[in-house]
Amino acid sequence: MKDFDMCPRFEAAVGLIGKRWTGLIIEVLLQQPQRFSEIAQAIPQVSDRMLAERLKELEGEGIVDRHVYPDTPVRVEYALTAKGRDLAPVMQALHDWANSWILVPTPK
Amino acid sequence: MKDFDMCPRFEAAVGLIGKRWTGLIIEVLLQQPQRFSEIAQAIPQVSDRMLAERLKELEGEGIVDRHVYPDTPVRVEYALTAKGRDLAPVMQALHDWANSWILVPTPK
Repeated sequence: MKDFDMCPRFEAAVGLIGKRWTGLIIEVLLQQPQRFSEIAQAIPQVSDRMLAERLKELEGEGIVDRHVYPDTPVRVEYALTAKGRDLAPVMQALHDWANSWILVPTPK
Repeated sequence: MKDFDMCPRFEAAVGLIGKRWTGLIIEVLLQQPQRFSEIAQAIPQVSDRMLAERLKELEGEGIVDRHVYPDTPVRVEYALTAKGRDLAPVMQALHDWANSWILVPTPK
């Protein structure tokens, strides 16, 4: 029997990344830090309200940092923290699996 | 900009694995095929009703196979399909990340 001490951590991690849109937001930010409007453009299916909520959650989890640059007008960018960037191998493994096994839904 | 054609597949994969208990059930079955009662024992936090529901969903997704052996009494085992076993690298990546970044909740 495997060591099940890890379960609470594992379940917490799955619960975090498994939330609707969270995976895609992390994907988009793995490319580079981006403004709210850029993230919204990259994931057109998510509403601004939902995106704002998810970004706040990810900030709370220490996965995303919100940087405010005092330009005129003020520039706000969202970037992954080290904890967030470390999710890259998880995302890659998920992509590999999805590419092998999940059928693409037909476009609308 | 990355190829976002993969998004629907990726989101489907995340949605599937991200459901509460699904990750843990896959974990348990990665060890070996098991009976319902054995899975239930390995994840004591999940109710029998919820476990039955999740196993049915995973069967529907082609991730779990339900094998009925005509012993007396009948023996029923749940096993991962090839699609399910291919999730092992995803689970491993998640474990590695969780072990580095997620604090273990204090035991009750």
